[in-house]
Amino acid sequence: MRAMQLTAPGTLELRTIPVPEIGPGDLLVRVGAAGICHSDSFVLGLPFPLREDPLTLGHEIAGTIEAIGAEVVGRAVGERGIVYLCWSCGDCRECLRGNENVCLAAGRGAMPPCPGLGPDGGMAEYVRIPASAFVPIGAELSFAQAAPLADAALTPMHAIRGATDQLWPGATAVAIGIGGLGHVAIQLLKSTTETRVIAVDVSAEKLDLATACGADITLLAGPDTAATILELTDGRGAEAVFDFVGSDVTAKLAVETVAPNGAYRMVGLAGGVPGIDSGPAGGPGLPWGATVRKSYGGTRNDLTAVVALAAEGALRVEVECFDLAAARTAFDRLDAGAIRGRAVLIP
Amino acid sequence: MRAMQLTAPGTLELRTIPVPEIGPGDLLVRVGAAGICHSDSFVLGLPFPLREDPLTLGHEIAGTIEAIGAEVVGRAVGERGIVYLCWSCGDCRECLRGNENVCLAAGRGAMPPCPGLGPDGGMAEYVRIPASAFVPIGAELSFAQAAPLADAALTPMHAIRGATDQLWPGATAVAIGIGGLGHVAIQLLKSTTETRVIAVDVSAEKLDLATACGADITLLAGPDTAATILELTDGRGAEAVFDFVGSDVTAKLAVETVAPNGAYRMVGLAGGVPGIDSGPAGGPGLPWGATVRKSYGGTRNDLTAVVALAAEGALRVEVECFDLAAARTAFDRLDAGAIRGRAVLIP
Amino acid sequence: MRAMQLTAPGTLELRTIPVPEIGPGDLLVRVGAAGICHSDSFVLGLPFPLREDPLTLGHEIAGTIEAIGAEVVGRAVGERGIVYLCWSCGDCRECLRGNENVCLAAGRGAMPPCPGLGPDGGMAEYVRIPASAFVPIGAELSFAQAAPLADAALTPMHAIRGATDQLWPGATAVAIGIGGLGHVAIQLLKSTTETRVIAVDVSAEKLDLATACGADITLLAGPDTAATILELTDGRGAEAVFDFVGSDVTAKLAVETVAPNGAYRMVGLAGGVPGIDSGPAGGPGLPWGATVRKSYGGTRNDLTAVVALAAEGALRVEVECFDLAAARTAFDRLDAGAIRGRAVLIP
Amino acid sequence: MRAMQLTAPGTLELRTIPVPEIGPGDLLVRVGAAGICHSDSFVLGLPFPLREDPLTLGHEIAGTIEAIGAEVVGRAVGERGIVYLCWSCGDCRECLRGNENVCLAAGRGAMPPCPGLGPDGGMAEYVRIPASAFVPIGAELSFAQAAPLADAALTPMHAIRGATDQLWPGATAVAIGIGGLGHVAIQLLKSTTETRVIAVDVSAEKLDLATACGADITLLAGPDTAATILELTDGRGAEAVFDFVGSDVTAKLAVETVAPNGAYRMVGLAGGVPGIDSGPAGGPGLPWGATVRKSYGGTRNDLTAVVALAAEGALRVEVECFDLAAARTAFDRLDAGAIRGRAVLIP
Repeated sequence: MRAMQLTAPGTLELRTIPVPEIGPGDLLVRVGAAGICHSDSFVLGLPFPLREDPLTLGHEIAGTIEAIGAEVVGRAVGERGIVYLCWSCGDCRECLRGNENVCLAAGRGAMPPCPGLGPDGGMAEYVRIPASAFVPIGAELSFAQAAPLADAALTPMHAIRGATDQLWPGATAVAIGIGGLGHVAIQLLKSTTETRVIAVDVSAEKLDLATACGADITLLAGPDTAATILELTDGRGAEAVFDFVGSDVTAKLAVETVAPNGAYRMVGLAGGVPGIDSGPAGGPGLPWGATVRKSYGGTRNDLTAVVALAAEGALRVEVECFDLAAARTAFDRLDAGAIRGRAVLIP
Repeated sequence: MRAMQLTAPGTLELRTIPVPEIGPGDLLVRVGAAGICHSDSFVLGLPFPLREDPLTLGHEIAGTIEAIGAEVVGRAVGERGIVYLCWSCGDCRECLRGNENVCLAAGRGAMPPCPGLGPDGGMAEYVRIPASAFVPIGAELSFAQAAPLADAALTPMHAIRGATDQLWPGATAVAIGIGGLGHVAIQLLKSTTETRVIAVDVSAEKLDLATACGADITLLAGPDTAATILELTDGRGAEAVFDFVGSDVTAKLAVETVAPNGAYRMVGLAGGVPGIDSGPAGGPGLPWGATVRKSYGGTRNDLTAVVALAAEGALRVEVECFDLAAARTAFDRLDAGAIRGRAVLIP
Repeated sequence: MRAMQLTAPGTLELRTIPVPEIGPGDLLVRVGAAGICHSDSFVLGLPFPLREDPLTLGHEIAGTIEAIGAEVVGRAVGERGIVYLCWSCGDCRECLRGNENVCLAAGRGAMPPCPGLGPDGGMAEYVRIPASAFVPIGAELSFAQAAPLADAALTPMHAIRGATDQLWPGATAVAIGIGGLGHVAIQLLKSTTETRVIAVDVSAEKLDLATACGADITLLAGPDTAATILELTDGRGAEAVFDFVGSDVTAKLAVETVAPNGAYRMVGLAGGVPGIDSGPAGGPGLPWGATVRKSYGGTRNDLTAVVALAAEGALRVEVECFDLAAARTAFDRLDAGAIRGRAVLIP
Repeated sequence: MRAMQLTAPGTLELRTIPVPEIGPGDLLVRVGAAGICHSDSFVLGLPFPLREDPLTLGHEIAGTIEAIGAEVVGRAVGERGIVYLCWSCGDCRECLRGNENVCLAAGRGAMPPCPGLGPDGGMAEYVRIPASAFVPIGAELSFAQAAPLADAALTPMHAIRGATDQLWPGATAVAIGIGGLGHVAIQLLKSTTETRVIAVDVSAEKLDLATACGADITLLAGPDTAATILELTDGRGAEAVFDFVGSDVTAKLAVETVAPNGAYRMVGLAGGVPGIDSGPAGGPGLPWGATVRKSYGGTRNDLTAVVALAAEGALRVEVECFDLAAARTAFDRLDAGAIRGRAVLIP
C-alpha cells in the first residue's frame, strides 16, 4: 500500500509498504481521509528521528473497517468511523475515571501512544488500530469532515469543557488563533454555551472564517488588543481565554486579558512563556483566582460529543483536501498560514 | 484608644487615637486578638506609604460587639465573632455567586477593601467594621484561637476547596512552607479529605509542627526534594501542591512535582516565577492538564466552614501571643522565621 | 393608585389604594408590566385568605425606579429593571453561597418572602421592593418581555442549571407542558446546551409554539408517550426530564422516561405523585442513579443570566398583554389553557 | 470444588462442582473470603429461580489469582485482590465516563452482570472473572477484611460521593440502618468529610457499633426520631440522609429530615415508598431543592478509593466469619438482624 512516511529528519516520502498485520484485539482500517496537524509539521521539523524505522504520519484518521481481530466484539467490516488518538492503557485510575488523555501508564509529562507519533499513523491506505480506539460516525458524515474531529475538534472540546464554570450565559470567551482548532472552537462555544466570542488573529482572512463560524467580535492582533478586550469587558477581562497559538505574544495577551477566577487554557504548543509570578495580583499580570492549564487532547467521551455535534450539523470543519501524494504541498501551505481551516489528505 | 499604626514606610508606632465612629450599617468591635500576617510585614517593608494618614494594621480580628449602627439587624452587643476580611460590594455578579473574594467592584487584579490594608484594621482596642463582615464564633473559642481563622485558616481553606477534584481518597497533597497558613492547611487536609500529606520546609522545627498537625511525611527542603516527591508518587507527582511561600525555588518545586491533571496553588506572595511555557509537556515542566492558580483569601462561606471546624476541635491554630505594645518584637520574630504557627497581638 | 387585589378567597378586585411608602433600604418601582403565573391562579383558588388585608398579587414585575430609600446606594431614579422574587435574608449560609432561593431564614419547606404572595406584589401602578431585589435590564427590553423573566425564565433556568451534568452535547431533554415556563425552557435548552429537545403537551397549539421555540421533536401526550420517548432514546430514556405540569400523569411519565443517572426535575406544582419506591430498579420505575428534585425559583445569579440572554436576543418570551383591569379575563384564559406563552398585565 | 449454590427457590446447597474453565480474557481466582449481602438473602427468598442451572452465590469476593487467560496482560499468578462487581461492557458512553455501574449495555432499569446474581459468584473455592474486574489489594489486608469492600464499602462510598456538594464541613449527615453498609458509611463520612454524623437504628447494639465507628450522635428509632433530627439541625434538617434500609418507615424519615438543597440517597432496597409529591414544599414533605436518588453499587474508581482507605487503616469492616459450609447459619443470623457488621464465608 502507499504511505506518506517520515524517513529522515525533514524528509517526507510516499513509499510503498506492506498492509499492516493486525493482532487479535486490533482492527484494520481502510483510510478515507487523514488530517494534517501543526504537530505533524513540528515533528517533520525535528532535527532528530522520532524512531529508527520510517514513520507513517497522521493522527486524524477516518475510514472503514476492513478486517477485525479474533478477540474483538461489537464491530463489523464496512463500519465507518474515526480513530481516538490516545491509545491509553484502559486500566489505570485515570483511564477508569474517563481521563484517558492523561493515562498514568504514559508517565508524568508524556502523552499516551498516538498513531503517527509513535505507532504508524493514518497517512496511508490502511492503518492498524486497537479496537477500543474506533469511534463510529454513522453513514452521513464524509471522511474529510470526520477526520479532523479526531484532534481539531477533540482538543478544543476538551479545553472548553475544562472551563465549564467560566462559560455561563453572558460570559466572554476569547479564541486566539483561528486555524484548524480555533475555527472549530468558535463553533463549539456558540453551540454548547451562550457566551460572547471574541476571535483574535493576525490575518484578516482568518477573521472572516471566525465570523463565518459565529464569532461575535473579531480583532486583528496588534499592540492594542489587550486594551480592547479589557474595554469590551468593562476592565474585567474575559472569563475564558483559549490560546491556540502559544507564542510569547499570545501567552502574554492571555495573561493580560483573562478575568479574575477566569480560565486561561494553553492549547497551541509554540512554547511561549506567559510570564506568571506568585506576587500579589495587580497590574497586567495573572489576576486572582484565574487558572492556567496546558490542555492536552481530550477524552473518548469528548470525542463522542464532537461526533454527535457534527452528525447533527452543529459543527462543520472547514477543510482543504489534497491527494495523499500532495502531502508536501499541504504541509507547505499549512506552515505558511495559508490553509483555511484544516488540510486533509485523501489516500 | 491605643492602636498600632504604620506612620511612615517601615515605621510602626503605638499611638493613642479616638475610638472610631460608626455609620448606620456598621459595628464597633472591641478587639480581643489580632493576628499578624506576612502581608503585614510586606506592607511594613514597602518604601512608600499605603495612605497619607497613619494606618492601623491588622486583618485577622476577633472580638466582641461594642456598638451597633442604626440600620443593622440581627446583631447584639456582647456577641463574640471574627471579621471577614473581604469588604466587598455584595451586589456584583461574583458577590452574588458567593465569590466575594473576587468582587467585581475591586477591578481586575485588585483585592476588595481589607481592614488594615486600606481602612483601619484590628491592631487596636476597637475597630469599625461593616455589619456584613461579622461572623459569630460562639462562646467557646478563645479570641487568640479565633483571630487567625480570618486569614491563616480562610486562605488555605479556599485553596483546598479549589482543588476538590484532585483531593480524592488516596491522593497525595504537598504543603510547602509550614508557617501560619501551612500548619493550618495540613489540619484542613487531614480533617476534610483522606489524602496523604507531605510537608516541606527548610526548618526541622517547622516540620515537627507539621507532624503534630498530622502530616504523613515531612521533607527537609533540599536539592533532592522534587526527586523524592516523584519517587513517593511512582514518578507521577502529587495530585495537589500548595505553595505557602511563593519564592522562585518553591514555585519550581511545585511545577516539577504536580501530577498531570493536578492542582498547583500559589498562596504565598513572595513573587517567585514558576517558569511555565506552552510547549509540549515533558521533562520537569508543568504536566498536561495541571492547573496553576493564584488563590486569594476566601469566601464568607469558607470562613463559616473554618469556624465550624475550629468550634468542633478539628482545627487548632498554633499561636504565640504578644501584648499589642510588643508588636515590633512579634514582627521581628516573624521575619526571622521564628514564630511557631501564628503570632497574635492582644490589645 | 390602582391595584389588582385578592380581597377574599376567589375574589379579585381592582381597588384604589395609597402608593406604598418606602423605608431607607427600599425602592419604589413604577410598574411597567406584571406577569401572571399559575401560582397566582393557585392562590386565587385557595379556600382561605393568604393574609388578613387585601393582597396585591404579582411576582413577575418589570418597571422603572420612581423613588429611592435614604440608605440605598448605586441606584438611580428612572432606571429600568425587574424584581428578583426571593426576598431572602442575604446573610445566612445559603444566601452567602448564592442559594438565596433556599434561604435558611425561610425555614425548612417554606419559601422566602415573595412579592404578591405575602408582601404586596406588582399588579398595581407602584410596588415597594427592597433595593437588593432590583435587577437592571438596560434600555432595549420591553417591560412586557422583561416581566416574565422574573419567574417564567428564572425557574426553568435554575432547573436546567441543576442538571448540567446530564445536558452534555448529544443528550436528550424532555420538556413536559409548553406553557409560560415550558416554552422558555426549550429556548434556554437550545441556546445554552447542545441537546435534542423533545416537547410534550396535550395541545397541538402548544406544540406549535414548542417548535417555534426550537424543539427538535414534539409529542402529543397520550398513552404511548413513554414508549415513544424510550424508542427515541434506544430504550435508555432521556438524560433530563423537566415536568412543568406536575400532575400524576406527568410525574409518572417522567419516572418512566428518565435515564439511569438522569435528572428528573419537578417544576410544576400540581401535586402529582411520581410513585417512587426504594426497591431494585427495573421495569418502568425510577432507574438507578437518576435524581428527583423539586426545583424552586432560582438564584439572583440565574436571574442575571436570563436577563443577559434576553438582552442579546437568545430568549424571547411569548406574551399576551392585558390591561390591568382585565386581569380576571387573563386568569380565566390561563386556567383554560388558552394562553400562548405568558399573560402579562399592563397597569 | 465445593460451592454454595442456590439450587431451587429458597434452597441453599453445598455442592461439589468442577473448577470453572476460563477464557482468554479471564482470570481464575482462588477465593479467600466471600461476604454475604442482604441482596443474597433477597435472592434466596425469591419464589422463582434466577436461572435454570444451580447458581453459586456471592458478589463480595477476595482471593488470589490462580490462573490467567491467554490474552490478559498485567496480572500475575499469586496476586491478591478483590472483584469489582459490575461486569460492564467497558465500551459504552457511561463506561467511558467512568460510570460502569450504569452501563448502557445493561439497559434501563437493570444492573450490569454481577457475579452470584447471574454468572457464578464467589461462595466457592474458585471463581472465574473477567480480568478487568480484578482490583489488587496488596499484601497486608486480610481476605475477610477485603471481601466486603466490594459492596459493603463500595456502595456507601458511591452514595457519599454523589452527595459531595452537601457534605461540607459543619454539615450534618444521617445514616439510617447500621448494618453491613451503614457501619462502613459512618467511617467513610468521618474520614473523607468533616461532617457531624447521626446514626439511627432500631437496635441499641447496632448503635454501639455506630459509636465505635465514629458516629457523633446515635438515635434509637422511634416516633420522635424525625422531630429530634430537626431539633438537632435548628429545624432545617440534615444536609444528607443515607437510608440503608429502604422501608416505608425509613423512607418517610428520610423525606421528613432532609434539608432544602439536601441529598436523600436510597441505598437499602426494601421497597419502601417515600411518598413524594410535586406540590409546593411545606410541612413534612420533600423540601425545595433536595434530591432523591436510588444509588446503585459504585464505579471502579470508587472501589480503588475504598481499597486505599482500608489499606491505610482509615476503614475497618466489622466482620463475623463462617465456614463456607455454615452459610445457612450465617444467612439466618443476617435475616434476624444479629450480625454485627458483615458476615463473611471462608471456603
